[in-house]
Amino acid sequence: MPDCIFCKIVKGEIPSTKIFESDKALAFLDINPLTKGHCVVIPKEHHDNVFDIPLEDLKILITDAKQLADLLRGCLDADGVNLVNASGMAAEQSVFHFHIHIVPRYEGDGLEMNQWWQTKARPADREELTKLAKEIKNNQ
Amino acid sequence: MPDCIFCKIVKGEIPSTKIFESDKALAFLDINPLTKGHCVVIPKEHHDNVFDIPLEDLKILITDAKQLADLLRGCLDADGVNLVNASGMAAEQSVFHFHIHIVPRYEGDGLEMNQWWQTKARPADREELTKLAKEIKNNQ
Repeated sequence: MPDCIFCKIVKGEIPSTKIFESDKALAFLDINPLTKGHCVVIPKEHHDNVFDIPLEDLKILITDAKQLADLLRGCLDADGVNLVNASGMAAEQSVFHFHIHIVPRYEGDGLEMNQWWQTKARPADREELTKLAKEIKNNQ
Repeated sequence: MPDCIFCKIVKGEIPSTKIFESDKALAFLDINPLTKGHCVVIPKEHHDNVFDIPLEDLKILITDAKQLADLLRGCLDADGVNLVNASGMAAEQSVFHFHIHIVPRYEGDGLEMNQWWQTKARPADREELTKLAKEIKNNQ
């Protein structure tokens, strides 16, 4: 994709601080990190999002994400990790080249994701959930 | 795990509104949904988090998560999806049985994840990132 910033990073046309590279994937540090070691792992081939990445490539990416999570926990003494993917403009995806954020977490790091989450979540009505589950299952 | 709420859901000891089930995995609607169709996919076997789930099981889970994302987009007319995993108390994990949140997103749904994200992210110093990347690569 000629105008894709991550494709340019793959080709070396834009600098990045790489921490991992294989035939299929690349991981580099986020330039606006949420925490120390926050990085993204991307496929070298361009795929917009989780809807259009081939399953085999997605499995490679999640394998790399797990191994990077293990690595970052070990070498940065992180206490946990968040893995986040946004697919589609409505999902607030910013770069339209599939990527998984790997956000190492530290006790007291102040991210307070749950504080945001809880202001947005609403307890569901059981009957409505049952109706919705039926609708979803009918589509499988 | 005797006291694990998700293990109890797997065994049918606690009700849930299931939308998908296989030999290895289960998906059910979140009872505090962020959006319509928000669900979690879990392994039937207990694993605490991304650090201790076997890679083969993780690949099954991400496959199911992708297929559920496709399904929800199709049948609920969603415009996008967020996939989120929290691993470890510091990562604000709430139930200590590995799970991936699948959050269908809709134009104008008001979640504003980026508004939260941007208040927490800080532009990084390039030199510091380079130093950090070196440190991480030395640990591989």
